[in-house]
Amino acid sequence: MIKVALNGYGTIGKRVANAIMLQPDMKLIGIAKTSPNYEAFIAQKMGINIFVPQESIKSFDEAGIKVAGNIEDMIKEADIVVDATPNGVGAQYKELYQKFGKNAIFQGGEKANVADVSFSSLCNYNEAIGKKYIRVVSCNTTALLRTICTLNKLSKVEKVRATIVRRAADPKEVKKGPINALVPDPASVPSHHAKDVNSVLKDLDIITMAVIAPTTYMHMHLLNVTLKSQVSKEDVINQFLNTNRFLLVRGKSKVNSTAEIIEVARDLGRIRNDIPEVVIFEDSIYTMGNEVFLMYAVHQESIVVPENIDAIRASLNLASAEDSIKITNTSLNISKGYLI
Amino acid sequence: MIKVALNGYGTIGKRVANAIMLQPDMKLIGIAKTSPNYEAFIAQKMGINIFVPQESIKSFDEAGIKVAGNIEDMIKEADIVVDATPNGVGAQYKELYQKFGKNAIFQGGEKANVADVSFSSLCNYNEAIGKKYIRVVSCNTTALLRTICTLNKLSKVEKVRATIVRRAADPKEVKKGPINALVPDPASVPSHHAKDVNSVLKDLDIITMAVIAPTTYMHMHLLNVTLKSQVSKEDVINQFLNTNRFLLVRGKSKVNSTAEIIEVARDLGRIRNDIPEVVIFEDSIYTMGNEVFLMYAVHQESIVVPENIDAIRASLNLASAEDSIKITNTSLNISKGYLI
Amino acid sequence: MIKVALNGYGTIGKRVANAIMLQPDMKLIGIAKTSPNYEAFIAQKMGINIFVPQESIKSFDEAGIKVAGNIEDMIKEADIVVDATPNGVGAQYKELYQKFGKNAIFQGGEKANVADVSFSSLCNYNEAIGKKYIRVVSCNTTALLRTICTLNKLSKVEKVRATIVRRAADPKEVKKGPINALVPDPASVPSHHAKDVNSVLKDLDIITMAVIAPTTYMHMHLLNVTLKSQVSKEDVINQFLNTNRFLLVRGKSKVNSTAEIIEVARDLGRIRNDIPEVVIFEDSIYTMGNEVFLMYAVHQESIVVPENIDAIRASLNLASAEDSIKITNTSLNISKGYLI
Amino acid sequence: MIKVALNGYGTIGKRVANAIMLQPDMKLIGIAKTSPNYEAFIAQKMGINIFVPQESIKSFDEAGIKVAGNIEDMIKEADIVVDATPNGVGAQYKELYQKFGKNAIFQGGEKANVADVSFSSLCNYNEAIGKKYIRVVSCNTTALLRTICTLNKLSKVEKVRATIVRRAADPKEVKKGPINALVPDPASVPSHHAKDVNSVLKDLDIITMAVIAPTTYMHMHLLNVTLKSQVSKEDVINQFLNTNRFLLVRGKSKVNSTAEIIEVARDLGRIRNDIPEVVIFEDSIYTMGNEVFLMYAVHQESIVVPENIDAIRASLNLASAEDSIKITNTSLNISKGYLI
Ligand SMILES: NC(=O)c1ccc[n+]([C@@H]2O[C@H](COP(=O)([O-])OP(=O)(O)OC[C@H]3O[C@@H](n4cnc5c(N)ncnc54)[C@H](O)[C@@H]3O)[C@@H](O)[C@H]2O)c1
Ligand SMILES: NC(=O)c1ccc[n+]([C@@H]2O[C@H](COP(=O)([O-])OP(=O)(O)OC[C@H]3O[C@@H](n4cnc5c(N)ncnc54)[C@H](O)[C@@H]3O)[C@@H](O)[C@H]2O)c1
Ligand SMILES: NC(=O)c1ccc[n+]([C@@H]2O[C@H](COP(=O)([O-])OP(=O)(O)OC[C@H]3O[C@@H](n4cnc5c(N)ncnc54)[C@H](O)[C@@H]3O)[C@@H](O)[C@H]2O)c1
Ligand SMILES: NC(=O)c1ccc[n+]([C@@H]2O[C@H](COP(=O)([O-])OP(=O)(O)OC[C@H]3O[C@@H](n4cnc5c(N)ncnc54)[C@H](O)[C@@H]3O)[C@@H](O)[C@H]2O)c1
Repeated sequence: MIKVALNGYGTIGKRVANAIMLQPDMKLIGIAKTSPNYEAFIAQKMGINIFVPQESIKSFDEAGIKVAGNIEDMIKEADIVVDATPNGVGAQYKELYQKFGKNAIFQGGEKANVADVSFSSLCNYNEAIGKKYIRVVSCNTTALLRTICTLNKLSKVEKVRATIVRRAADPKEVKKGPINALVPDPASVPSHHAKDVNSVLKDLDIITMAVIAPTTYMHMHLLNVTLKSQVSKEDVINQFLNTNRFLLVRGKSKVNSTAEIIEVARDLGRIRNDIPEVVIFEDSIYTMGNEVFLMYAVHQESIVVPENIDAIRASLNLASAEDSIKITNTSLNISKGYLI
Repeated sequence: MIKVALNGYGTIGKRVANAIMLQPDMKLIGIAKTSPNYEAFIAQKMGINIFVPQESIKSFDEAGIKVAGNIEDMIKEADIVVDATPNGVGAQYKELYQKFGKNAIFQGGEKANVADVSFSSLCNYNEAIGKKYIRVVSCNTTALLRTICTLNKLSKVEKVRATIVRRAADPKEVKKGPINALVPDPASVPSHHAKDVNSVLKDLDIITMAVIAPTTYMHMHLLNVTLKSQVSKEDVINQFLNTNRFLLVRGKSKVNSTAEIIEVARDLGRIRNDIPEVVIFEDSIYTMGNEVFLMYAVHQESIVVPENIDAIRASLNLASAEDSIKITNTSLNISKGYLI
Repeated sequence: MIKVALNGYGTIGKRVANAIMLQPDMKLIGIAKTSPNYEAFIAQKMGINIFVPQESIKSFDEAGIKVAGNIEDMIKEADIVVDATPNGVGAQYKELYQKFGKNAIFQGGEKANVADVSFSSLCNYNEAIGKKYIRVVSCNTTALLRTICTLNKLSKVEKVRATIVRRAADPKEVKKGPINALVPDPASVPSHHAKDVNSVLKDLDIITMAVIAPTTYMHMHLLNVTLKSQVSKEDVINQFLNTNRFLLVRGKSKVNSTAEIIEVARDLGRIRNDIPEVVIFEDSIYTMGNEVFLMYAVHQESIVVPENIDAIRASLNLASAEDSIKITNTSLNISKGYLI
Repeated sequence: MIKVALNGYGTIGKRVANAIMLQPDMKLIGIAKTSPNYEAFIAQKMGINIFVPQESIKSFDEAGIKVAGNIEDMIKEADIVVDATPNGVGAQYKELYQKFGKNAIFQGGEKANVADVSFSSLCNYNEAIGKKYIRVVSCNTTALLRTICTLNKLSKVEKVRATIVRRAADPKEVKKGPINALVPDPASVPSHHAKDVNSVLKDLDIITMAVIAPTTYMHMHLLNVTLKSQVSKEDVINQFLNTNRFLLVRGKSKVNSTAEIIEVARDLGRIRNDIPEVVIFEDSIYTMGNEVFLMYAVHQESIVVPENIDAIRASLNLASAEDSIKITNTSLNISKGYLI
């Protein structure tokens, strides 16, 4: 049983923590939290060991939250640390992980050079095997990479032109906007997402443009992919239907928006309405010559969770790509086929 | 085992259906649905019998949804029908329920005169015992009544002045607005909510004013209640802490909005993030002379679910108020105390 | 002086009416309105003749709005009618315009076959000269066509791949949503916008994908255009800087969103904060080989106003393309260069 | 001609600057701006002298904005300074105003003790005459005070219970949220607005509760006022109809929301769609015994502009309350009666 520590128990951290607890080969030794808010109470309620910065112990005590030790204590005890602290903070913690000689998994909010390799399970698991520091790319990039590497099996992907319509904030965030605007992110081309894709697929010809929209539920990607050879709409549909970590939405189910995708996740009893799978609108798949077009939705809160689990196995060389992905999918109930 | 049929499997209907399945004394014989959308697929996946209008059987067949019969078949088989069809449609169905001599529970979107009594578990369960037609009041009115009847046990409620800030649409609804406006609902005083409260508490001096805000998560109520005698803030807090179907939010948990309440429900693993309890911001409770002020949030999608279950028992005289409420709360995991 | 009647005084109609009043060669003989709401009061306040359906005269009288006659009276008196009634209603009115032998300008909410020609000032003015029925294409298509025909002057446009992020409702609309969702519009490819572009540029290779976002201010387009030859970023910038009906936004002005574009329009004292110009984010212009990428914002409420004025002149053969566009731009203060 | 300087050219500052330029007895000698964004370009375009912090001169030069001097230069030259810098920053600048012996007007984002008196034109103009430092209360408090002092003329106001539904951000602000939540502001009672009202009306029995909603257009207030004597609905309507700085919205104009109020302001050609008047929904006015209920909308961006102008006159003892209010209203086209 690999001992995993989780630093930063927010949107991503709390999900990865839950996922670790469901793995047959991992044990969550604790999470680190800096402020005693409701997420700390949740961790306590779930019986998770809570580690805090030395100077914060008092404030947790006062809030009635039992503290298991300080963050260094947690790191010392771990075989590997998953860092899910806010953008850029992970890079600061790296020193600590190095000091104790621990492997670490970073998130997409960090610069690529924080780690030895940027990671996408379906694209470059093997490259990450044995790497001390791995960075799971961001939610948008994870979705792009899954999609590209899956299409690539059908026919070599030669060019990607993608538009990303980003959710502006996570559902829990009440101080981020905009309320009524579209915000280019940034107003220059290509957006950083293309560069992030290239951190894994070094030579891909990809240009991305991104805009932020006032919604909290999911991102949407609108893709134009040029393949080496011509493929049919059915080929593309089948390729995705047969690949785990993708779900398709049928027109006849009348799921016509990100909100209705989330509603289905709620109706299906999914915890936190999470959908780590990329959700493709089946009717949007369109082929013309060597070009493929498609539209899909990305649940930013949960999509990187399975990739984090795989990254742990890759870093510690616990399993082959195929085996890790299978264990992760089974333990997290990640499926393929139709959403409903 | 009472045989319950559910007509109208949407936001309210699908939740009441699930709740019925959890009752020790009830059996869901089926649901009626008019269009084969994702909610129909969900019902099918859950193994629920689906009844449809005779003329719709073909469209369900084509969609691949197995139909158990037409709506009349379902009603004939039932001891009681819960009607959760859209506003005003229930009144049309009443004829059918009458034709087959079945008791029925209606929702707050119907006019009060659709039923023999308007219903709130904590206010007038006894009045509803044995009534053939019961109307569970709307989400906003249910919350108001629960709160008023609970305060009333502390000291007689003499006057209520309430503001209702309404969510504009349910999360799944993508065609309702506004996107960027506040809409008086209506721009006249009192709003219909006061009249709806008076359908249960006939003589209460209550004035309500309502405004619609562009959010989908929860309503918020801001109350100014005048009691017969002076009470302390602690009295009020304790009264709610000790009453089922209320949850309090502590300041120190840093849950400062409806979005964070929903986030906690997600983190707690609540199915569909439902919170049928009224959620009071503890720090908002304020007393001054005989006046009590408080602010609470109302999860419109789920708040009326327990009241529907109680209404079934009242109508068929299956249990006393106390017993029904207890069974309902236990089966649905409805609690009291602090949210987290 | 050409006598112009305007049927349908809503978002588009009231703006076209104002624009007609500013033309040296046109006279607004009246507008037709069906319900006596605030827009009718505005028309009255502006001294515009109001015509209404015969059966509505009474309701306007009661509201205190003076009626100049019925809709037929207005049409009889006119040389040409601009129809700005809701989607599809224009087609019904066409019979009436025909009955009285009047030319008419329709809007983009009508099917292309309502008219003899679909119209874009910068693309096919000449084709529309003398045509009895002209349809000004929709707001999104107007922006696409202006942009494509302007780039085409630089180098032949061979291929367009465009993403449209649509505002979900106009600012005044409080019943349209979504509040919190992204809605593919539709979830199939290509969206109808490509077909609408092809109604003017018959042979263009264009694919569009569209998604609705919960905002009211402006649409955003993210374009990938392949030209016959390679051009530089400076070429593209200069091309737009030198073309009327385009404005560029400089990075250094820190206008980073549709909301800030609208804020500038307000600060500039523009009536109704209208920006009939296409507003391009200068820093988004990017060239790579023969490809050009760019992002721009479209003020849906006002963008088609100048095209409507030009369409009137084309239909009645009042002026050449160059002359009409010049008169329209001057009278409406439509400029080129930088927004601020 | 009084020489007025304006420090902080944002939402409030740019409006007050424009208003000063419209006064017969005032001259705007310049504005101070810290960053060369679009608002600086606007000021330049309007021919306003721009003063900047000494250390920022270079960045303005580089942006192509002509600088008239540093902030100290501006203050030295002025008779009085209007400070419209962000919350709390005004207090820091006070030292500078004192150093040069200049009177100053502060905004509601400052603590009450920044000034000698908190100010509302219709309530306590006389108290402010000759005061060196005057603080115009916040947008919400300005609306509350105008309303209370106007009702007070009808019959003594004995008690106010008010709910405030606040817009979450100004239209130009794209980084503030929430996107989908209601946020108690704060989750304790009374909100600070009551205290702010008491800074002017020291002894008033007022309790306020506030909640933030995801909209940018206007605040809404829902008031329950207890008067000393009974008044009729007509009395209340007439009182407001006859008081400048109030506008009423008639039901028959079908203006049913804040968005439609703004639309009317746009249609009326109001610059920046500003409505410094309090806009009351006429049909919401309701009386019962000594209680008056009403709902009104508050245009946060412009409501305090006339009060700032009056405060300048009060501070420098330029005119009586009546005279100042009249000049301000006339110069700014502030009216009474019906919105449309
Ligand atoms: N939210 C998303 O949609 C999303 C998706 C994919 C990747 N990511 C990436 O995941 C990372 C975490 O983002 P998130 O959305 O979960 O953030 P979050 O703000 O929800 O959570 C961050 C957590 O880190 C804790 N924290 C803050 N400062 C800390 C410190 N100095 N030391 C230790 N802990 C600290 C906070 O208490 C919080 O629990 C970022 O790199 C982000 O870019 C986020
Ligand atoms: N959504 C809420 O927040 C809420 C809260 C409390 C009470 N209510 C009340 O509950 C009732 C149902 O509302 P909802 O929000 O669940 O609506 P909904 O639209 O989500 O669901 C209505 C269901 O009725 C079905 N239906 C439509 N027409 C039908 C017909 N003619 N015959 C049979 N079924 C038909 C639809 O397919 C759908 O399954 C209304 O009275 C409403 O006022 C709603
Ligand atoms: N709003 C936009 O963003 C936009 C942009 C470009 C084109 N268009 C197109 O312009 C047209 C008008 O759209 P709009 O947004 O101005 O609509 P709108 O609803 O704002 O205005 C329509 C007007 O038509 C009137 N009307 C309704 N029914 C009528 C009838 N039977 N007879 C006569 N008048 C009637 C209404 O009173 C209203 O004044 C549509 O074809 C639309 O697709 C709209
Ligand atoms: N926006 C509203 O709705 C509103 C309504 C009433 C009162 N107020 C109050 O008005 C004041 C200004 O608010 P606003 O909304 O106009 O803010 P804003 O952010 O729009 O504008 C503030 C201006 O001050 C400038 N500034 C920032 N830091 C500065 C500094 N250190 N020195 C000089 N200038 C500086 C900024 O460049 C900007 O031009 C605040 O006290 C606020 O509470 C705002």
